[in-house]
Amino acid sequence: MNEKIKSTADEIIRKGRVASRDLLKLSEEDCNQALQKLATLLEQRTESIVAENQKDLYSGKTNGLSEALLDRLALNPLRISAIAEGVRAVISLRAPLGEELSYYESPKGITVKRVRVPLGLICIIFESRPNVTIETAILALKSRNAIILKGGKEAKHSNAIFASLIHEALRSVQLNADAVQLLGDDGRQIVSEIIQKEDGVDLVIPRGGESLIRAISAQSRVPVLKHYKGVCHVYVDDKADLCKALPIVVNAKCQRPSVCNAMETLLVHSAIAETFLPKVGEALLAKGVEIRGDNLTRALIPDALTASEEDWKEEYLSLTLAIKVVESLDEAIAHVNRYGSRHTEAILSENEEALHRFATEVDAGSVMLNTSTRFADGFEYGLGAELGISTDKLHARGPMGLEGLTTYKWITSSDGAIRE
Amino acid sequence: MNEKIKSTADEIIRKGRVASRDLLKLSEEDCNQALQKLATLLEQRTESIVAENQKDLYSGKTNGLSEALLDRLALNPLRISAIAEGVRAVISLRAPLGEELSYYESPKGITVKRVRVPLGLICIIFESRPNVTIETAILALKSRNAIILKGGKEAKHSNAIFASLIHEALRSVQLNADAVQLLGDDGRQIVSEIIQKEDGVDLVIPRGGESLIRAISAQSRVPVLKHYKGVCHVYVDDKADLCKALPIVVNAKCQRPSVCNAMETLLVHSAIAETFLPKVGEALLAKGVEIRGDNLTRALIPDALTASEEDWKEEYLSLTLAIKVVESLDEAIAHVNRYGSRHTEAILSENEEALHRFATEVDAGSVMLNTSTRFADGFEYGLGAELGISTDKLHARGPMGLEGLTTYKWITSSDGAIRE
Repeated sequence: MNEKIKSTADEIIRKGRVASRDLLKLSEEDCNQALQKLATLLEQRTESIVAENQKDLYSGKTNGLSEALLDRLALNPLRISAIAEGVRAVISLRAPLGEELSYYESPKGITVKRVRVPLGLICIIFESRPNVTIETAILALKSRNAIILKGGKEAKHSNAIFASLIHEALRSVQLNADAVQLLGDDGRQIVSEIIQKEDGVDLVIPRGGESLIRAISAQSRVPVLKHYKGVCHVYVDDKADLCKALPIVVNAKCQRPSVCNAMETLLVHSAIAETFLPKVGEALLAKGVEIRGDNLTRALIPDALTASEEDWKEEYLSLTLAIKVVESLDEAIAHVNRYGSRHTEAILSENEEALHRFATEVDAGSVMLNTSTRFADGFEYGLGAELGISTDKLHARGPMGLEGLTTYKWITSSDGAIRE
Repeated sequence: MNEKIKSTADEIIRKGRVASRDLLKLSEEDCNQALQKLATLLEQRTESIVAENQKDLYSGKTNGLSEALLDRLALNPLRISAIAEGVRAVISLRAPLGEELSYYESPKGITVKRVRVPLGLICIIFESRPNVTIETAILALKSRNAIILKGGKEAKHSNAIFASLIHEALRSVQLNADAVQLLGDDGRQIVSEIIQKEDGVDLVIPRGGESLIRAISAQSRVPVLKHYKGVCHVYVDDKADLCKALPIVVNAKCQRPSVCNAMETLLVHSAIAETFLPKVGEALLAKGVEIRGDNLTRALIPDALTASEEDWKEEYLSLTLAIKVVESLDEAIAHVNRYGSRHTEAILSENEEALHRFATEVDAGSVMLNTSTRFADGFEYGLGAELGISTDKLHARGPMGLEGLTTYKWITSSDGAIRE
């Protein structure tokens, strides 16, 4: 069995490498034509997609999946049409490749260009939502990377029909269908084998819960682009405009509490705590937020529970919020750098010096000045597409768009230059 | 003992993190003033440096170091003056930080800037040459990264006096001397401890032989910037100008055979093999090169030895060269992608289509068109400084300058925007 997994993994890598070289020759026109074909196929085959999805939903119910998970899994004509529109949106994105990143003419008569090229072969691992199959495959194609997809078991039939439509679209422009390979039932073991080879794939992107991401990172011998979690703070400075601050705090916590750029801890400067905390407490409690505060907070918001050391580290992903009163900007920055997850951090202040210091000294992918943390997102940043958010510092940081799937190559030309 | 190493490692990381935050506040003027002070100190203390270096050379001789290693280790007034000049050259480099990499104004009234920032805390491991202590410390300072240095035992006294001069220079601008920490006798164990912590340092750069780099990569839980080796090819196409080709081939092999961008395998198109190989064979043999060829090569260069499969993978780092005759550009590209180390690959041809295909389809950090592989170098590429060469595809690829020590941060501003 183990030998079979090994040889299957080798074969998938080999096929992916061949396809990645074929992709280097794919014209932008043909690429967009394949994406156009895929969008059309999604609409034409809506009935078949729904039928396959029903099989997954039936198994899911039988296996006792939660209502929330079943909802993430479900496809209907409206959702399928939105997926097709997503494909068309990627067609209109600027092609990321071939861009000249730098140009240098040396006094010795050589010219050196740095140009953007694909990474090569990528492996993406994701859970439940089957539309990720389409989203990631089209971003890989637009950036000319071959891709290996490992979806969740619970979306098996939905993922399979999506993959078959992608293959049909690829073949319509005579492109090697191995450019997008979907792993089957033994996918978990095959992924494990693939990512332990140093020269297997160029990048792994795990999308899902923290435990999935930690398991992949621990095993992988190739680079992993990831964020474990988003412990995001909003710091309300003593120079904040409290009329702006209240709606931002409510928005950062309540607009969509289950996502990684939602606020988890509120820091309030002691000079404005007495004015601000009762108001913000009332607004949050009215929205059903459970508040866990330090002693000063609890004195000003009587309904607040007691926060423990663990609360400063917590990513609640729900309508729970930790609140701490700080004595200074320095204490706020120190708290954020100690407990934050380097994802997204906000300061609310009308003082330029405070904004500048927070932006400079806080170690995070995104820093928001007088702006809700909820804007930390590839679409809001104008990237046109988002593959995920990275809390790593190397290669891609913060929201990742198509550029995250590229690297560069130095191309040097001359008329026969030799080095003296 | 193990507990002591652990707590020492923790303390070094803690100090480095504090220093990295202090560096965020260091002005360009003060930074350059510290570097200027260091250059002056190197010249003023030349005698003391030479005296400390003598201790290392004495131990080296006693321990039977080779002449080549002793030469790499040796410092004299001329070499020290060159190191001081190197420091002054870095002062004049453009400051890499604060650069605005992108700017976006969203229709929702937020502005998003992507600005270049330091990585934070870096660990560099190197062997023998003590000047690396100075070179890497000043590049770290110029890019506002705190750094942990682990030098070779054989250069212990030389590294120590260099580190003390760096600390003196840092203190002259009231900067925390922990910005540059040099590890002592138990450095190897401490590094091992540091790089196994996922949040210890932001980057590890091992500089040295392949076995050092492999050992570090195998242990590390943080990103490693590296190249294992340079198995570089020159492909002479059937449309090559053979008058240009001959000096390039000789230069790529012979000008400095011990370095990673020297040619290790020559590929020659069969259509020109009869004309070209006898000439190139004669020129290389006259330079003392040992040639290992396939059958066709051996028929045309009678003094060539027989190449085995192992020769196509070999990084000789000496005056030995493998030669293979190929039937086509496709075979050349396939050979390079199979056996190359993704470092530097050259094609010699007057045919635009062949140059374009080679540049597009070969997977390597640097591709040289009608140019010697020896130009793959940060200084030749106009980077002003070189930290090393990366054969990884993520973050930095090919020659790495100061930018390799930076990442970016997204800074979003608005006047109180919330997400609807």
